[in-house]
Amino acid sequence: MQQSIRREVRSVSIQTFLDELASSAPTPGGGAATALVGAMGAALVSMVCNLTIGRPRYAGVEAAMRDILTRSEQIRQNLIALADDDAAAYAEVVAAYRLPRSDEAEKAARAEAIQRALVRAAVPPLAVTKECRSLVPLCLQVAAHGNVAVVSDAGVAAELAAAGVRASILNVRINLAEIKDAEFVAKTEDDLAAAERGLQEDLDRAISIVRAKLAPKATP
Amino acid sequence: MQQSIRREVRSVSIQTFLDELASSAPTPGGGAATALVGAMGAALVSMVCNLTIGRPRYAGVEAAMRDILTRSEQIRQNLIALADDDAAAYAEVVAAYRLPRSDEAEKAARAEAIQRALVRAAVPPLAVTKECRSLVPLCLQVAAHGNVAVVSDAGVAAELAAAGVRASILNVRINLAEIKDAEFVAKTEDDLAAAERGLQEDLDRAISIVRAKLAPKATP
Repeated sequence: MQQSIRREVRSVSIQTFLDELASSAPTPGGGAATALVGAMGAALVSMVCNLTIGRPRYAGVEAAMRDILTRSEQIRQNLIALADDDAAAYAEVVAAYRLPRSDEAEKAARAEAIQRALVRAAVPPLAVTKECRSLVPLCLQVAAHGNVAVVSDAGVAAELAAAGVRASILNVRINLAEIKDAEFVAKTEDDLAAAERGLQEDLDRAISIVRAKLAPKATP
Repeated sequence: MQQSIRREVRSVSIQTFLDELASSAPTPGGGAATALVGAMGAALVSMVCNLTIGRPRYAGVEAAMRDILTRSEQIRQNLIALADDDAAAYAEVVAAYRLPRSDEAEKAARAEAIQRALVRAAVPPLAVTKECRSLVPLCLQVAAHGNVAVVSDAGVAAELAAAGVRASILNVRINLAEIKDAEFVAKTEDDLAAAERGLQEDLDRAISIVRAKLAPKATP
């Protein structure tokens, strides 16, 4: 267990990651998986940019694509780091629950350690929510203006980014349910509501752009 | 490029996969990424099963969880294989488009090779659609009956499986748009419609079960 916490997720093979995800080991779990799904969405936005930049046909959107690429690569990097942060923070929650509770003093110390760990463990999935949410408009832009030969990849990116938002909201909520700090809970619920606002509309817009471009060419 | 086609995706590190996904190399692309997202969803279903089986509190659902685990592990294995199949099939499409076309005979041979490759390349993403669709009811079951301590992971699995269905439909459609065999297109569109049928309802049911279990405990 210690090993899978300390090792960085980026250096693990896909098979090992999936095997450890499927196992009963405490990490990696849904939090790391969600961060990686968002990172795949960000990588696909970058791919569309990389297949658009430098093409004469798309010279008009080249500056915009370069800007999107810088942002999608930053989001990808942030999400990979968050996959590790999530696993580390969750391991602290597990450790706190395992603290001794043989007398009242130990019970109080354990309860306090659990609360501290839960608050800290809510931070990475909330950051994943925000990163994935900020990716959605970039998916929309590459769907609308990127190389049409890879427009389905822009649509896949939008689906992954939106799933990343929704899945990470569940990852935040499982912590919130146990947190007693009402102010922290209320502030975090506001952040989750902000992330959900307009999400379905943005996704629907991106997908309808993609579908229109994927429609079979009408027979002349 | 040849190397990234021949190498199996399972043995690649997560960082390498994401870097190659983000690059302008033809593979991996949205097809392989979608298959891996589905595989992560399947792994999370397996995780919930593995954290439910053997717990006295969940003895009543143990047989059901063992059955789900067998199926989710099979789906995971199929999706990992499909990530490679997708990359290989797409590479054939790229190769066909690069065939010479200096005279009429070459043009005709090239057009035929492209059509053959496109039809073959529609098969892996359609299989991904079906695998991800068959995963959704398993997510629903582990959300309803699995270990409540990891109910958010069941919800994450449902979001990833549903995103896998929707994203792979786009991956199929980008091929269908170029395929001239009307019968194949119609048959495939029927399969896509079947996969979409009831998907949102199944996802909504799974997420509402998860949300109800995640609701903060009422103060007594």
